Amino acid sequence: MADIKRLSTGDADFDRRLDTLLAWESVSNDQVQQTVSTILAAVQERGDQALLDYTVRFDGWEPEQPSDLEIPLARLEQAWQGIPAEQREALGVAAERIRAYAEHQKLASWSYEEADGTLLGQQVMPLDRVGLYVPGGKAAYPSSVLMNAIPAQVAGVAELVMVVPTPGGDLNELVLAAAHVAGVTRAFAIGGAQAVAALAYGTDTIPAVDKIVGPGNIFVATAKRAVFGRVGIDMIAGPSEILILCDGETDPDWIAMDLFSQAEHDEDAQSILVAWDAAFLDRVEASIDRLLPTMERQSVIATALRERGALVLARDLDEAVALANRIAPEHLELSLADPQAVAARIRHAGAIFMGRHTAEAIGDYCAGPNHVLPTSGTARFSSPLGVYDFQKRSSLIMASPEGAAGLGRPASQLARGEGLTAHARSAEYRVPPGDGEVQ
Amino acid sequence: MADIKRLSTGDADFDRRLDTLLAWESVSNDQVQQTVSTILAAVQERGDQALLDYTVRFDGWEPEQPSDLEIPLARLEQAWQGIPAEQREALGVAAERIRAYAEHQKLASWSYEEADGTLLGQQVMPLDRVGLYVPGGKAAYPSSVLMNAIPAQVAGVAELVMVVPTPGGDLNELVLAAAHVAGVTRAFAIGGAQAVAALAYGTDTIPAVDKIVGPGNIFVATAKRAVFGRVGIDMIAGPSEILILCDGETDPDWIAMDLFSQAEHDEDAQSILVAWDAAFLDRVEASIDRLLPTMERQSVIATALRERGALVLARDLDEAVALANRIAPEHLELSLADPQAVAARIRHAGAIFMGRHTAEAIGDYCAGPNHVLPTSGTARFSSPLGVYDFQKRSSLIMASPEGAAGLGRPASQLARGEGLTAHARSAEYRVPPGDGEVQ
Repeated sequence: MADIKRLSTGDADFDRRLDTLLAWESVSNDQVQQTVSTILAAVQERGDQALLDYTVRFDGWEPEQPSDLEIPLARLEQAWQGIPAEQREALGVAAERIRAYAEHQKLASWSYEEADGTLLGQQVMPLDRVGLYVPGGKAAYPSSVLMNAIPAQVAGVAELVMVVPTPGGDLNELVLAAAHVAGVTRAFAIGGAQAVAALAYGTDTIPAVDKIVGPGNIFVATAKRAVFGRVGIDMIAGPSEILILCDGETDPDWIAMDLFSQAEHDEDAQSILVAWDAAFLDRVEASIDRLLPTMERQSVIATALRERGALVLARDLDEAVALANRIAPEHLELSLADPQAVAARIRHAGAIFMGRHTAEAIGDYCAGPNHVLPTSGTARFSSPLGVYDFQKRSSLIMASPEGAAGLGRPASQLARGEGLTAHARSAEYRVPPGDGEVQ
Repeated sequence: MADIKRLSTGDADFDRRLDTLLAWESVSNDQVQQTVSTILAAVQERGDQALLDYTVRFDGWEPEQPSDLEIPLARLEQAWQGIPAEQREALGVAAERIRAYAEHQKLASWSYEEADGTLLGQQVMPLDRVGLYVPGGKAAYPSSVLMNAIPAQVAGVAELVMVVPTPGGDLNELVLAAAHVAGVTRAFAIGGAQAVAALAYGTDTIPAVDKIVGPGNIFVATAKRAVFGRVGIDMIAGPSEILILCDGETDPDWIAMDLFSQAEHDEDAQSILVAWDAAFLDRVEASIDRLLPTMERQSVIATALRERGALVLARDLDEAVALANRIAPEHLELSLADPQAVAARIRHAGAIFMGRHTAEAIGDYCAGPNHVLPTSGTARFSSPLGVYDFQKRSSLIMASPEGAAGLGRPASQLARGEGLTAHARSAEYRVPPGDGEVQ
C-alpha cells in the first residue's frame, strides 16, 4: 500500500483534514529576519565590499575584486555553444514557444475622446531595468531563466540583470546557456539576500533595478519582502503543488507519474488527486506502488506523497470542481472528458492543463505559458508571471476647455466636501466666470 | 519671498539637493512593528473579542456585541438620501465617470489554437471578495471610496467589504453615501491594524477577503505589508506628490494653486514646479506669496512647501522631461504647448495631466481615471489602481495528441537536464512509442 493519505468528502472530518493538508505558512523566523536585516544594511552601507565578503562566506570562493563578480556576456554565449546540440535545440524550442505565447500578453496603450474633446486613457511603458534571481545549487533550473527573462524581454525591458550564486565558483552551463538565449544583458555570480540587496540598492558594480523576480530560498524570499516598495517584486512562492481531477478514464500510470512529477521537486511539494470513482483511486495507488521504486528521486517523492499528498474521493464532478476552487491550486490538471467545459467553471488556479494528453510537465518547460505561478492558494488573487508584470501604466487626462469647465464644478463640490479648498480653487480657475460659480 | 526652495539644474550640487528633496523612507519603527504583530496575533487568536477590545481602546466607543460593528446597508442608503442634493449629484457624476473609464480597463480571456490543434491562452476571472480600508478622522475621503470600490465592482467582484474606523462612534455621512453609490456589499465600523487582521484572517463576524486595498496610517500600512502573501494588497502609499512642467505660458496663479492643491494634503506632501524660464518662476513665487494667506489650509501648505517643495529652473524642455522621468512622480502636470507630444516621452508617472486646463484636482475627483497612484518613485514599476487589480488570470493549456507528442520531446530533454526524471517520464508517456524515443 502506497504511503499516501486517502480522504473522502463524505468523511465527517473531511474539511478539517483538508485544511490541515493544505496548511502552509512561509515562516521567516526571527533568526532569518535578523540575518537578512544585517545583510541588507551591510550591502546598503558597504556596497561591493559587502558582496565580496558574503561571497567568500556563503558561496565559498574568493573574488579578488568586484569586477570578478560579473559573468561576461561572452561567457553566456560560450556556454550556449558548448552544451550538447539536443539541449541547445530543446532550449531553443522552449524559448521560441515561451516568446510566442508572451507576445499575446502585451498590454497596449489606449485612449478615448469624449464629445467635448476631453481625452482619457492609459499609456503603457516597459520597466527600464529588471533583476532576475536564479537559485544556485540543487534548484538551478535553466527553464526558470527562460520563464522569468523572456516575458521581460517581450515587454521591452532594456536591461535584464541576472544574479546567480556559484557555490565553490562553479557555473551551471545550462543556466548560462538559457540566459544567453533569453536575452539577459548582464550577469553576476552573486546570490542570497546580498544579491537581492545589491539589486534593490545598487552598488558600484551592480546596477539598481526597478523590479526583482525569480525564486529563491527563505533568505532570498525574506529579503525580497523587505525591499518590496523600494522595488517591485513578484510573488513570494511557496512549495509547488498539483491538483488533478480525473474521471477515471485516464491511464492510472500517467496519473501516478503526474503526481510524481510534482512530488519530486522537494519534500514539501504537494500532489493531490481527486476522483469520483473509488476503484480508480485504487488503480492509481497500485501504479504508485509499482512505479515509485523505479524513480531516480524515489526518496523525495515518497516523503512528499506521505507528508503532503492525498487521494481524494469526491461524490461527483461538481463536488470536485468546488474542491478545486476551494484549493485554488498552482497547477490544475483536468484529466477528463470535455475539459474545456470544466475549465470554464474553474475560478481559481494558476494554470489549467486540459485533457489527458496535457501533462503538467510540458507546461513546465515548453508549451509556452509561464511556469512561475501563484502557489498556496494565492491564485485566489494573483496571476501567472507574464509580460504585464514588466509593463506599467500611466493615466492620461487632457481636459478640453469645455471639459475642464464641466468637470470643475463636481470636482469643486467634492473637494469642498472633503475640506480641500486648494483643490476646489484649482479646479474653479478652469471654470470661466460666466459658466456658473460653484459657491 | 515665499518660503520654498529654488533649485537650478545648473547648480554644482543639483543632483545631491534633488535626491535629498525626494528622499522618503516609509519607516515602520520597531515599536510600530511590535504593536502591529501583537494586534495581528490577537485578532487571529481571539477574533471578534479582540476587535471589540481594540475598538474600545483605539476608537473610544463600546460596541456591546460583534454584530454592533456592522453598518447595515440601509444605513448607507440613508446617508445617500440625507446628504445635500448638490453633493449627491457630484458623487453621482464622479461615480458614473469613474465607472465609464474603468470599463475600458477590463481584461478579457484570450486563447489561440496552433496548427496541430493545441490550445493556449489565459482565462480571466474576478476576485471573489475584496476588502476596502477607508481611513477615519481627518483623512476620511469619500472620493477614495469611489476610487477603490468602483474598479472592483466593474471587475465583477461579488463581495466588497468596507471597513472604516468611527472614532467616538461618529459616522461620516459622505463616506457612507459614497459606499452606497459605489456598490459596497458589507460595511464594518472598525479600523487600524485590527481591521486589516480581520479582513486577512476572518472572524465570526468579518469575512476573510482575497485582497485588501485602500490607504491608511503607518499601523494600517505595516499590517498590510505583514499579511501580504496570505491576501493580496495594493501598493503601500507614501505622501502625495505633484510635479508640474510649465513652459511659462500658463497663468502663474493657476500653477501656484495647483502646487497648493497637493501641498494641502499634509505636511509631507510634495509640490515641485520645473520651468525653463527664470522669470516665470519669479511670477509663480509672487503668486504663492499673494495667494497663500488666503488659503484655509495655509499652515499645512506653508509647511509642505517649505519642507518638501521646490521651484526648479531647467535648461530646456528636454532637460525637464529627463527630470520627470528621473523623479517618476505620482502626478505629472504638463502645463505647456503640445502636451501630447511631451506625454509620449514620459516613461514614468502615475498620471499625466495634459494641457493648461487639466488641473490635477479634476483627476482627483471626477475625470474618471483613478486617484490611487504609485507614489515615491514607484511609478517606475507600478500602475494606477484599476479594474485589472481585481481580476486575475489562469493559464490555459490543452495539448492535442500530436501537440503532446511534439512537446514531449523537448520537455523530456530539458527535464532530464535538470535531473527531474518524473517530469521527463510524465511527458514521455504522451509521446507514442513509434514517435521517436527521447533516450
